[in-house]
Amino acid sequence: MKKWYDLESETYHGVVISSRVRLARNLVNHPFPNRLDDEGANQVINMTKSAIETTKETLTSFFEHVAMNRINQVDKIAMMEKHIISPQFVKVKMPASLILSKDEALSIMINEEDHIRIQSMACGMNLDKALKEANHIDDLFEEALDYAFDDKFGYLTACPTNLGTGLRASYMIHVPALETTGQLQFILEAIGKFGLTVRGIYGEGTEAQGSVFQISNQVTLGQTEYEIIDNLTSVTKQIIEQELIVRHKLLKDKRKFFEDAVYRSYGVLSHARMITSKEAMRLLSDLKVGIELGVIETVDNKSINIYNLMAKIQPANLQIIYNRDLDLNERDSARADYIRDHLPQLIGG
Amino acid sequence: MKKWYDLESETYHGVVISSRVRLARNLVNHPFPNRLDDEGANQVINMTKSAIETTKETLTSFFEHVAMNRINQVDKIAMMEKHIISPQFVKVKMPASLILSKDEALSIMINEEDHIRIQSMACGMNLDKALKEANHIDDLFEEALDYAFDDKFGYLTACPTNLGTGLRASYMIHVPALETTGQLQFILEAIGKFGLTVRGIYGEGTEAQGSVFQISNQVTLGQTEYEIIDNLTSVTKQIIEQELIVRHKLLKDKRKFFEDAVYRSYGVLSHARMITSKEAMRLLSDLKVGIELGVIETVDNKSINIYNLMAKIQPANLQIIYNRDLDLNERDSARADYIRDHLPQLIGG
Repeated sequence: MKKWYDLESETYHGVVISSRVRLARNLVNHPFPNRLDDEGANQVINMTKSAIETTKETLTSFFEHVAMNRINQVDKIAMMEKHIISPQFVKVKMPASLILSKDEALSIMINEEDHIRIQSMACGMNLDKALKEANHIDDLFEEALDYAFDDKFGYLTACPTNLGTGLRASYMIHVPALETTGQLQFILEAIGKFGLTVRGIYGEGTEAQGSVFQISNQVTLGQTEYEIIDNLTSVTKQIIEQELIVRHKLLKDKRKFFEDAVYRSYGVLSHARMITSKEAMRLLSDLKVGIELGVIETVDNKSINIYNLMAKIQPANLQIIYNRDLDLNERDSARADYIRDHLPQLIGG
Repeated sequence: MKKWYDLESETYHGVVISSRVRLARNLVNHPFPNRLDDEGANQVINMTKSAIETTKETLTSFFEHVAMNRINQVDKIAMMEKHIISPQFVKVKMPASLILSKDEALSIMINEEDHIRIQSMACGMNLDKALKEANHIDDLFEEALDYAFDDKFGYLTACPTNLGTGLRASYMIHVPALETTGQLQFILEAIGKFGLTVRGIYGEGTEAQGSVFQISNQVTLGQTEYEIIDNLTSVTKQIIEQELIVRHKLLKDKRKFFEDAVYRSYGVLSHARMITSKEAMRLLSDLKVGIELGVIETVDNKSINIYNLMAKIQPANLQIIYNRDLDLNERDSARADYIRDHLPQLIGG
């Protein structure tokens, strides 16, 4: 089955790569995972598993159930690289499981920081769709399970920053022009006032690669799910607008230099025999924006599915693709091979 | 007619690009050019011109005679970039002329620093051939003209460093491995002891580009022409040997990195839309050595004719090729276009 990120990239205005929603939920009568013993952890797993299996819809055929202690470290990291699970979940020691839809758009982590974390992904600017899918699972669970809920604090969560809606919504955005011109810095500083935050692609404390960032809400309490999403969407639309203004200004003022940079990026990506993920992301970022601005023409006008490529060129995914352990140099070499095989063709060679 | 440097590159062992001989000669009864008035200068021109025309061989059909004051600055600089004339001859103010063979291998500057400077070029390691051609012209001149010659000092020249044989012989060598590893520095320091000197491609005080250097004799007095050439050739052969040892060591120890560098150079050269001559020379140098070591395969095993490309991507040559004035950015752009059109094709794209 095709994964959601295998689809042709539908980047919204060339800026919003994907939308993600995450709901944090916990069950009554069980301590939060950080204080849960193995027996309790297994109970939570079994309860959620049977909730999926006994729902009136035949969800079972769309999902697979993965016991985290039965998969190896490389597979776990590979899932993290694809944003299916959190970095924290890679390291989970207690009984934990993952319920994953076959297109990988929906993933439910059991016994991460909270008992249940429902994550829903969608291409482009589609938080509404992502939220709808997540809410649907949430509703089905709610029929079968007793959620820890407080009239004042809303959904109770292990960390107080998730209290209330338990909702973290985010857009993955590609903003090379704002980053290059240094304007992103000002935006990052202003964004806190709106209860939002911007981070690298692998979450808090990780470096942005290829000018790809995640913008998400910090506040979960005192707002409805729809207010949170509206606020995030409205700020993101302003960022899109700024990014596009700066892109067109760069194109107008420095077309020849921009063109040269884009073609060089293509030249290196299509010829390098070794490449780090950092350099690859920088060049793919250049190329993506070049294609989208019409500076370089590809066969069938095909752009860069940056979400997919970004995941596939990470260490664990490369080891899975090439089916063997790879040391640092071998990874750089496998990455270069993978990229050469997956670049769009240029018109006229 | 094809120029001598249009021939497929016949680089000797991948190191010696070309061989050059220059003979300095002066006429009796005329002051050296730095003290020659216009009338005297014109007499020298006419005497050499008729020497060529009245020789028993029909040399006229192989040569053209160019009055330097009748050609424009761009054409002069373009000839200098192709090493047909010296940088000094570009700036000549007095009546001066150039006698140039149609394949451009033989050029005779009249009223440069000396009355007559006979220059002979050949592909690869062919100083004997170059000297033979120069000597032939010299002999023909000697039949018709009275050379200033002294039994003790040999041929008399404007600058005492040319006294004696009046011979400057040089090889143009491509030594990227010795340059990269820093070993060239030691060789340069040792070479003075042999009466030799190493300079950049446009003579004294010019920077080397693309690891291309000229090695030539400093001493012209007290040695025969053949001793000068034997000495230069024997030292150059040692440099070739060292260069090849280091190339193969790099290839053996760092093949993957070397391969990556060579392919990247090709990727940039085949895609860049703007490029400086310095960067172009560096990348062409990488590519040349990569082709010669079999790291990258080109259709028909075609290498880089670096002498030709090096000249053609210089500012004046580009303006002649594209037939218009070019500012700095336009030159970088024209240079990138020219290189893309003249790169060998890779096997398998």
